[in-house]
Amino acid sequence: MTDRVREILSWYASDNPGVLNNLARMMNSGRLAGTGKFVILPVDQGFEHGPARSFAPNPSGYDPRYHFELAIEAGCNAYAAPLGFIDAGAAEFAGRIPTILKLNNSDSLLKGEDPCPAVTGSVNDALRLGCAAIGFTIYPGSSFRNQMYEQIRELIEEARSVGIPTVIWSYPRGSSLSKDGETAIDVSAYAAQIACQLGAHIVKVKPPTAHIEQGEAKKVYEKAGVKLDTLADRVRHVVQSSFNGRRIVIFSGGAAKGTAEVLEEVKGIHAGGGFGSIMGRNSFQRPKAEGVKLLQDVMDIFKA
Amino acid sequence: MTDRVREILSWYASDNPGVLNNLARMMNSGRLAGTGKFVILPVDQGFEHGPARSFAPNPSGYDPRYHFELAIEAGCNAYAAPLGFIDAGAAEFAGRIPTILKLNNSDSLLKGEDPCPAVTGSVNDALRLGCAAIGFTIYPGSSFRNQMYEQIRELIEEARSVGIPTVIWSYPRGSSLSKDGETAIDVSAYAAQIACQLGAHIVKVKPPTAHIEQGEAKKVYEKAGVKLDTLADRVRHVVQSSFNGRRIVIFSGGAAKGTAEVLEEVKGIHAGGGFGSIMGRNSFQRPKAEGVKLLQDVMDIFKA
Amino acid sequence: MTDRVREILSWYASDNPGVLNNLARMMNSGRLAGTGKFVILPVDQGFEHGPARSFAPNPSGYDPRYHFELAIEAGCNAYAAPLGFIDAGAAEFAGRIPTILKLNNSDSLLKGEDPCPAVTGSVNDALRLGCAAIGFTIYPGSSFRNQMYEQIRELIEEARSVGIPTVIWSYPRGSSLSKDGETAIDVSAYAAQIACQLGAHIVKVKPPTAHIEQGEAKKVYEKAGVKLDTLADRVRHVVQSSFNGRRIVIFSGGAAKGTAEVLEEVKGIHAGGGFGSIMGRNSFQRPKAEGVKLLQDVMDIFKA
Amino acid sequence: MTDRVREILSWYASDNPGVLNNLARMMNSGRLAGTGKFVILPVDQGFEHGPARSFAPNPSGYDPRYHFELAIEAGCNAYAAPLGFIDAGAAEFAGRIPTILKLNNSDSLLKGEDPCPAVTGSVNDALRLGCAAIGFTIYPGSSFRNQMYEQIRELIEEARSVGIPTVIWSYPRGSSLSKDGETAIDVSAYAAQIACQLGAHIVKVKPPTAHIEQGEAKKVYEKAGVKLDTLADRVRHVVQSSFNGRRIVIFSGGAAKGTAEVLEEVKGIHAGGGFGSIMGRNSFQRPKAEGVKLLQDVMDIFKA
Amino acid sequence: MTDRVREILSWYASDNPGVLNNLARMMNSGRLAGTGKFVILPVDQGFEHGPARSFAPNPSGYDPRYHFELAIEAGCNAYAAPLGFIDAGAAEFAGRIPTILKLNNSDSLLKGEDPCPAVTGSVNDALRLGCAAIGFTIYPGSSFRNQMYEQIRELIEEARSVGIPTVIWSYPRGSSLSKDGETAIDVSAYAAQIACQLGAHIVKVKPPTAHIEQGEAKKVYEKAGVKLDTLADRVRHVVQSSFNGRRIVIFSGGAAKGTAEVLEEVKGIHAGGGFGSIMGRNSFQRPKAEGVKLLQDVMDIFKA
Repeated sequence: MTDRVREILSWYASDNPGVLNNLARMMNSGRLAGTGKFVILPVDQGFEHGPARSFAPNPSGYDPRYHFELAIEAGCNAYAAPLGFIDAGAAEFAGRIPTILKLNNSDSLLKGEDPCPAVTGSVNDALRLGCAAIGFTIYPGSSFRNQMYEQIRELIEEARSVGIPTVIWSYPRGSSLSKDGETAIDVSAYAAQIACQLGAHIVKVKPPTAHIEQGEAKKVYEKAGVKLDTLADRVRHVVQSSFNGRRIVIFSGGAAKGTAEVLEEVKGIHAGGGFGSIMGRNSFQRPKAEGVKLLQDVMDIFKA
Repeated sequence: MTDRVREILSWYASDNPGVLNNLARMMNSGRLAGTGKFVILPVDQGFEHGPARSFAPNPSGYDPRYHFELAIEAGCNAYAAPLGFIDAGAAEFAGRIPTILKLNNSDSLLKGEDPCPAVTGSVNDALRLGCAAIGFTIYPGSSFRNQMYEQIRELIEEARSVGIPTVIWSYPRGSSLSKDGETAIDVSAYAAQIACQLGAHIVKVKPPTAHIEQGEAKKVYEKAGVKLDTLADRVRHVVQSSFNGRRIVIFSGGAAKGTAEVLEEVKGIHAGGGFGSIMGRNSFQRPKAEGVKLLQDVMDIFKA
Repeated sequence: MTDRVREILSWYASDNPGVLNNLARMMNSGRLAGTGKFVILPVDQGFEHGPARSFAPNPSGYDPRYHFELAIEAGCNAYAAPLGFIDAGAAEFAGRIPTILKLNNSDSLLKGEDPCPAVTGSVNDALRLGCAAIGFTIYPGSSFRNQMYEQIRELIEEARSVGIPTVIWSYPRGSSLSKDGETAIDVSAYAAQIACQLGAHIVKVKPPTAHIEQGEAKKVYEKAGVKLDTLADRVRHVVQSSFNGRRIVIFSGGAAKGTAEVLEEVKGIHAGGGFGSIMGRNSFQRPKAEGVKLLQDVMDIFKA
Repeated sequence: MTDRVREILSWYASDNPGVLNNLARMMNSGRLAGTGKFVILPVDQGFEHGPARSFAPNPSGYDPRYHFELAIEAGCNAYAAPLGFIDAGAAEFAGRIPTILKLNNSDSLLKGEDPCPAVTGSVNDALRLGCAAIGFTIYPGSSFRNQMYEQIRELIEEARSVGIPTVIWSYPRGSSLSKDGETAIDVSAYAAQIACQLGAHIVKVKPPTAHIEQGEAKKVYEKAGVKLDTLADRVRHVVQSSFNGRRIVIFSGGAAKGTAEVLEEVKGIHAGGGFGSIMGRNSFQRPKAEGVKLLQDVMDIFKA
Repeated sequence: MTDRVREILSWYASDNPGVLNNLARMMNSGRLAGTGKFVILPVDQGFEHGPARSFAPNPSGYDPRYHFELAIEAGCNAYAAPLGFIDAGAAEFAGRIPTILKLNNSDSLLKGEDPCPAVTGSVNDALRLGCAAIGFTIYPGSSFRNQMYEQIRELIEEARSVGIPTVIWSYPRGSSLSKDGETAIDVSAYAAQIACQLGAHIVKVKPPTAHIEQGEAKKVYEKAGVKLDTLADRVRHVVQSSFNGRRIVIFSGGAAKGTAEVLEEVKGIHAGGGFGSIMGRNSFQRPKAEGVKLLQDVMDIFKA
């Protein structure tokens, strides 16, 4: 148990030893073990975007075992997926990598509405499958946001009571936000704050842009002279907005893109004090060796 | 216990012995016992289309005992029906054929809305009636899809906890899909994936056409050069989309049609690696001897 | 215990002895005891139409005791009413006639919407009041049908588990049906089938007319040459649609009318194999002696 | 225990001794003890109309203790109020007067919708506070009526199971009724019937006018020659519509008005066989001595 | 235990010793201990307005520990915040200041609807975190008011049963009120009354203006000659409307403003008999020493 892991656990002092143990389990797994940094493999795109859009570029990914193997070989801290994918490998890969059960999901067959995922798994499933955490997506800005906030409130309470921590994917989206607003720095920081206030142990947001969506936030940033020029600056503000860095905040990679671009972004996240990356399509849509290499290159940045 | 059945059960290693036992019960019943293939008789049309449209062509079908007899005489793996029909024969035919209790149903007196079945049975009913599985229909593409996903999530969890596996009928339909889109290959594969991710043990979809509904999927298929020309190709893609063939996927026959046409379609399903057929109107709307013969001809294809 | 009652009970072999006992209790009560035929007095019009419209023609009916007495004196199999009316006589008339607690009701102060009754009683109330069955109205064709189907599903399961059978009043009505369609033969048969599939032990429908509402049903009737000319023909088809006569189907009388007309209709129901009549306004809105006589004349037809 | 109280209790023979005991507790309290008549002080106007509109005319009423004292000094059978008011005096006045906990309330800050109160208390609160009954308002004619009927159904069942009877305030109101229709005799009688059928032990309605709202009711009244000319006639019809007088029906006073007018109305209620009055603003908005005198003058009419 | 605290507790005589103990805990904490007066630090703005708008003016406030320290150093009676903020300090600051867990919150990413917060915490959370009270916001005037009233009804019952009192933030707002109406004296008094009737132990409202929103209230105020000229007059009327001063009513400060203005307002609240102030942005958005000084200056006014 490194001092850094001990320090991070100290931020969650109100939680029970079961929750601390599972947080430690993730922090002490993989190539980043002991650093307090995270690289997580998430694979919910089969549900969210459909199987062909997700796995046709690298058909190995149709097989649920592939992602367990990829995450294990790369040395990730954890592997996150919906019920079906976890179920299909939990027994075979038991004890080899912490898993995060994503408890809500949306398909993309229906368009045009504000986002509102279905709850697709339970805390009991997470216990049954030996998961280290539950995951849940909220969409601040959606007209259905309250429904999601109330669902995760109940799930966090239940999960915590049985020693399971919670990862919240906080993705601003909905009719009240512009497209640019979804990754605006003010909105991203707000999304991180909401997830923390709801009781998330780990928060996942997208890398924020320099756009500012809300007029009232703009005034405050200008008056206080908050530095938001570089990605590192903006990541630093999101980390600050996550209880001054006393909650673990990790960043997603978004759509598949070039390796150089991915690593450049990760450097910004690391420079700003981000706790890690969660990287799906950029890793599992490549041949396995390339995917493993990319994930390990990312880890190397966070180890630096 | 054949090697093939043992192999199929290995895909469900995260499930408890009760669930495995009931999956094995279906795979070890009827003329396809031990092959890992399925021919199931489903009779929910009385609820879905009305009694005369379903049973007037062969009035024996008004009697709930008829369908038990048909399935037993033909040597089906299982017989699936709503509460009333199962209730009306469960005691008399106990121990003679595995039954699947369909837990939701729609009537066709109300038109024009996106589909949203009523829940019409429970896991307790399935236990009480000695069923080997529960069945549930989801309509991806319906604006009520989340309601169905959340209902089946709860039912799967409850059923699994008492050793009962789940069959999901995944039928894309609703205002967000074109009529052709309901059986489009991209949509069918997506529907199978959703059912698998929701935790279905067995998935039932319609035979997919070569139509591609979603622009983004079309791009991916073209880029990856996915072969979709023949029914066998398309079935293969649906099987691949069902966790790379590690979930049982069976195909329905749809509206009543000629024998030759039915058997031709079944050959395509078999050639593509489909796990079987579920065949209602094509079998029970014929005189019993003809219905038995058709079901057995179908079985013979899967035994080949 | 007559052979006929024993035979009817055999259709419900999947049910527990408690349910069979209560079905037998109704079949062995009154002047039709042992015949397997039913004449039931239902009095929910106070709630459904208001007190004056229901009871002003024969003011004795304002008193809840009157209907117990009428049903007992006439020798009915059972008396059905909402919570208040049963509550107001259950202790005084305990052991003298089986009662059916109607668990949902609508008032007629609000017009123009699709029908959607309120649940107004519980299975616990039925147990507490010593009832032999629960009653519930569904309105196939209403946009609220699923709500009713799901309510009765839960109530049937609960009632059955404590040995209480269920009577479903299946009344097609709602914006998707024409006025004539509410009693059309295809719709009536469909309504009976739905009630049976939902698990009803006894189904109550209105006497069907020769009108056919649905185009697709019309084609089937014509092709199969189903005989629908007389009321007896149509009743026979409804009985057939109720699991080929393996569920008890009884018919209501509708609005008050002349004695000859009532008896003529009952003869048609009897000729078609109907299991009995449920007759409210035609009996309780007359002076008691006349009401008793009418009910007994109806019984005499079913005894013939 | 007088014969009259014993007789009234006999109407509730299906209820348990706990419920009978609490009904008797109210009938044996105050200056009308033993007569089977009721004068109840209700004070929910603070919630329904706001504090100043309710209590500014007599500022003593801002204090929750005032209403306990008023009801005790006047010799009322019971005092009815929402959770806050009962809570604020229940300990201090324990054992001195039966209380009725009003379990739903509406504020008047929002206008224009059909009425739909919030549930603001529970049966557990009633037990905890030693109440003799629960109270609940239904608005027949509101598009939300079913919600209220289902809420009170559950509350009655729960209350009854712990020996607590139920008082239903049945106030027709909503978009389906004209303003005059809210107190029309046909609608008032119907409202009383609905409350009785829902299982109310005591029903409260407004004094009915001679207006007839529903065409179909009008025909029946005319045909049957129901006498509706005087308030006494109309009260008699409402009592008849309450299970032929076998349920306790009391009448409210409505808006504050002159003493003579109040007493005249009470005489009509008494003459028609009403079981009592429930009188709020007319009593608590006067100086205490005057309020006590008015309540006692009303009692004297019912004692006559 | 001072006489004043004892007196205040006597108003809550219907509550259990657990609730009284926690009320006493707050009244016996900090620089106002024993006076029966309250100065509370509330910090829910991170959730309600976003992190930058809340904490950029004084970035120490991003850290959840800061607010515990501020409240402790200033000598507040209690510190109120949502789940995340309390969770992040509860263990470290256990036993040093009573905490109030805010159980519902709204974010400001979605505009234009009537307010309807999400429930974001539970009574179990309050117990687990050692809180002295739960807090909850209602918005009288919102079309979602009933939902909030019913949520807090359940929470109050649950909290009370485990010895936890309730603070209701009663903020009139919504489409049925004008902007001025939100702080109108009639509406504020009504909002306080509603909170008391719902069972709140402590009520928090905004300082009322002289505006009168409702025509019917205006008539009553004029007729009764209620004095509403000064803030002290209006506070006195709100206190009177809170069960004649037998419920604790405290007042918020609203948006950040100048020190003189804040203290002037507090003097009015004190003069009118208000029980204290709850002051967030005006204290935590200043440097800590200034924030402590302001809070203590406010306390000094209430000690006078």
